[in-house]
Amino acid sequence: MRLLMIGDIVGTPGQSALYDHLPRLKRGYHPDLIVVNGENAADGRGITRSIAREMMGSGVDCITLGNHAWDKREVFDFIDDEPRILRPANYPEGTPGRGFARISSRQGELAVISLMGRSFLSSVDCPFRRADSLLKQLKPGTPVFVDFHAETTSEKQALAWYLQGRVSAVVGTHTHVQTADERILPQGTAYLSDVGMTGPYDGVLGMDRDLVVKKFLTQLPVRFEVSQGRTQLNGVVIDIQPSTGKAKRIERVRIDDDQPWFE
Amino acid sequence: MRLLMIGDIVGTPGQSALYDHLPRLKRGYHPDLIVVNGENAADGRGITRSIAREMMGSGVDCITLGNHAWDKREVFDFIDDEPRILRPANYPEGTPGRGFARISSRQGELAVISLMGRSFLSSVDCPFRRADSLLKQLKPGTPVFVDFHAETTSEKQALAWYLQGRVSAVVGTHTHVQTADERILPQGTAYLSDVGMTGPYDGVLGMDRDLVVKKFLTQLPVRFEVSQGRTQLNGVVIDIQPSTGKAKRIERVRIDDDQPWFE
Amino acid sequence: MRLLMIGDIVGTPGQSALYDHLPRLKRGYHPDLIVVNGENAADGRGITRSIAREMMGSGVDCITLGNHAWDKREVFDFIDDEPRILRPANYPEGTPGRGFARISSRQGELAVISLMGRSFLSSVDCPFRRADSLLKQLKPGTPVFVDFHAETTSEKQALAWYLQGRVSAVVGTHTHVQTADERILPQGTAYLSDVGMTGPYDGVLGMDRDLVVKKFLTQLPVRFEVSQGRTQLNGVVIDIQPSTGKAKRIERVRIDDDQPWFE
Amino acid sequence: MRLLMIGDIVGTPGQSALYDHLPRLKRGYHPDLIVVNGENAADGRGITRSIAREMMGSGVDCITLGNHAWDKREVFDFIDDEPRILRPANYPEGTPGRGFARISSRQGELAVISLMGRSFLSSVDCPFRRADSLLKQLKPGTPVFVDFHAETTSEKQALAWYLQGRVSAVVGTHTHVQTADERILPQGTAYLSDVGMTGPYDGVLGMDRDLVVKKFLTQLPVRFEVSQGRTQLNGVVIDIQPSTGKAKRIERVRIDDDQPWFE
Ligand SMILES: [Fe+2]
Ligand SMILES: [Fe+2]
Ligand SMILES: [Fe+2]
Ligand SMILES: [Fe+2]
Ligand SMILES: [Fe+2]
Ligand SMILES: [Fe+2]
Ligand SMILES: [Fe+2]
Ligand SMILES: [Fe+2]
Repeated sequence: MRLLMIGDIVGTPGQSALYDHLPRLKRGYHPDLIVVNGENAADGRGITRSIAREMMGSGVDCITLGNHAWDKREVFDFIDDEPRILRPANYPEGTPGRGFARISSRQGELAVISLMGRSFLSSVDCPFRRADSLLKQLKPGTPVFVDFHAETTSEKQALAWYLQGRVSAVVGTHTHVQTADERILPQGTAYLSDVGMTGPYDGVLGMDRDLVVKKFLTQLPVRFEVSQGRTQLNGVVIDIQPSTGKAKRIERVRIDDDQPWFE
Repeated sequence: MRLLMIGDIVGTPGQSALYDHLPRLKRGYHPDLIVVNGENAADGRGITRSIAREMMGSGVDCITLGNHAWDKREVFDFIDDEPRILRPANYPEGTPGRGFARISSRQGELAVISLMGRSFLSSVDCPFRRADSLLKQLKPGTPVFVDFHAETTSEKQALAWYLQGRVSAVVGTHTHVQTADERILPQGTAYLSDVGMTGPYDGVLGMDRDLVVKKFLTQLPVRFEVSQGRTQLNGVVIDIQPSTGKAKRIERVRIDDDQPWFE
Repeated sequence: MRLLMIGDIVGTPGQSALYDHLPRLKRGYHPDLIVVNGENAADGRGITRSIAREMMGSGVDCITLGNHAWDKREVFDFIDDEPRILRPANYPEGTPGRGFARISSRQGELAVISLMGRSFLSSVDCPFRRADSLLKQLKPGTPVFVDFHAETTSEKQALAWYLQGRVSAVVGTHTHVQTADERILPQGTAYLSDVGMTGPYDGVLGMDRDLVVKKFLTQLPVRFEVSQGRTQLNGVVIDIQPSTGKAKRIERVRIDDDQPWFE
Repeated sequence: MRLLMIGDIVGTPGQSALYDHLPRLKRGYHPDLIVVNGENAADGRGITRSIAREMMGSGVDCITLGNHAWDKREVFDFIDDEPRILRPANYPEGTPGRGFARISSRQGELAVISLMGRSFLSSVDCPFRRADSLLKQLKPGTPVFVDFHAETTSEKQALAWYLQGRVSAVVGTHTHVQTADERILPQGTAYLSDVGMTGPYDGVLGMDRDLVVKKFLTQLPVRFEVSQGRTQLNGVVIDIQPSTGKAKRIERVRIDDDQPWFE
């Protein structure tokens, strides 16, 4: 079972990059399942129903979100109706939407779990214990993919070691920068601290760089806007043994002007 | 001018990895200058004079530090005497040591600047303005390397864009995870969000993973210890035009059991 | 039922102030129950068994703790044996000790709940929900006192309004500064954002002021020590209707050289 | 010289409370100078020119601000023209407005300094050093009032001890809760950790309490609105020896339904 995960889509540049590259990625990798983090798809903040539908229509099987899940208010109108749009599962009980899905593919079923870290983020429930309780619902050996939306490398690595051997992959999102530490942990869990973002190539995390620099220089409130111009796509491809849920291979994908895609 | 930068050395495993691989790295890359971040060299916290001397003796030209610079109290006894051991330059006036050095090599002089971010770190002086004032002391076109010790990808990218065209390279440290976003910015500044660490391969940021997991699970105070077992080394090689200070090439270096070094 | 609550005892100066003033306070107020926050009793960090026993021996009925509960490692040896020493109840399941006690007095039983805030503190469980679940164990109308150990005034006020009418009093601790906002909320819950600390009068939160100033000025690690010299005591007296659990009166107590105690 | 300082005006309820009570306060205290913190005057966020003018017209001599100074964008249009509207002086060089004023009264001149803390707030310049440099511009013995807008009690107390004997008073703002620790430090500096706010009496820091509770419970984005209903006013009266700048007396002022004002 081959999974393609693509990191945080930022604004219309991110959407364009996704739709530009997706056909090539499908031809090149033949993924059985595609998961995309969409928390910044609408103007860099949140997601709308029409953006989500268009993504699903292009072949995306599951959309994960993060701390920006709620930035477009209309998300509250549709998130309960969309079993394949996931907000972090460790928001407190009663939160709209869900953080867990089972997606079927020609290679069998994949469980997808969205979790959020707490270091320098919101005071949500413990992601370690939420993972435990979700995994109890699954037969051992089920392929499981975890999108861990977190700020610090320590919380990400800690969760991966905590879950190793129990899930197929832990892949981080949120920092918008792809890390180079992809590996298969000894008990068969694929790991990458952050998959990176998909959107503007010359901004700061996808936002206009002059505005972000201004914010750091002045410490005044600055309203960020999505950067324009050329784009990048960041993703990861993970091969999972469907019968055991063990990861066999993890490969980073990075496409930009400095590293163009060749077919 | 070829610069080899190696990321945060963690404890004795980190020192061993450094001394194991340094001869190979010298044979493979022929660097003109070697910079190493040593803030975690002593038991994961700080650095001692004897560790620093041993590093210098092995061919390291400059040691940079970060928020952990001060963890071993003896640093206050020797940092004023060591012009090539740098703590972040944007600590307030009157701080022992310095954050700026000029290192000579057979390819000419390289200025090295250590800076620290403020997002989720200490309330030091503005790193952007400190960089400005240090650069004023240099002739335009001088090769300049900046170690930006910071937590967030936004502050790191913002500083790189702010300094682009004025310094040869901005390389991040502190997260202990190498990022995969190396590039040459349009005006000739090499950039990498984080170079990663050098030390234990199976810990969390180099510390014993069971202790770190325990901390996240219990939220109680836990005293971390350096992890044992196999190691990794993370670095970056940057080629700089000595006459213009422009970066021409940036290449990540990662050595561990999954990616062994072949000569 | 009259409750006397005394805020964070800091070091030996705090213990001295407690034992100096307690006889006078008993004579002056005739409290039925005495609760003391002891998280800083041992050198400003944590508490020992012998300090706790001495407090109990002097007439203290219940000791509450906070984020510093765990600073003296020996706490793990005795906290499970001491039903009247409370650490915050919203530490995760499995944490040693307990956060809830029922203390009997000549005016009937008082339930004491220790909770901790999450804003700028640890990622413990939701204090609002933990309060809900603890209150479910109690007959409506039971007198209940809540020590809410938290940093921000917003989290403290929010919890008080959330619990108003369901508990007799919400009194904050942790900032070490007594607030002047004592009141009875409309549905009969007494409230004070912070009761303040008991210990050195001329330090910063009880610690040596030169060391704390040095920390802010240098941003370097500084080991704080308990301040010496004259002392202060901060507390609050709350009268509760035993049959309904409603608070009838709240009065702040502050004793120091500028506001000496007159009998 | 008698100074009346009134804490953060929140929304129209805060403005109403100010205008209701100001005549009584003038009759009762005969202040020579009135300083008001206005950072939340406009809907709880920021200030407008017309609100500022109305305050000035009612007898306010100086308006201080804080982290919310910039929330209404029009502040950038008028702050440079208003020498008696102060934003924190330790915003970086180049920030619109100023943080220092000299206000004349029938008892002589008072220097007013606005400063902001950095703990859990923005990365502005060091407030301790900014105070030093501003004080250098003044003749020793000049009466000086400092509004220190900060979150933590430790930073507030540290600044007060740092400046004691050099300024007449350090009064904190920002937490919106009045503290009960008013005192004259040994070298003649009046101190109060926080003066508290002026506005709704039954909200959370002046905002609608149900919305704030919802935020803590759900951890979702919630747009706060100013609370309605009855109000409170919090202030402090400080008497200063005009010839020496020493404070002689400090008295808290608190007016609400539980503590009405009697003439
Ligand atoms: Fe994102
Ligand atoms: Fe995010
Ligand atoms: Fe480090
Ligand atoms: Fe660091
Ligand atoms: Fe305390
Ligand atoms: Fe505390
Ligand atoms: Fe305010
Ligand atoms: Fe404020």
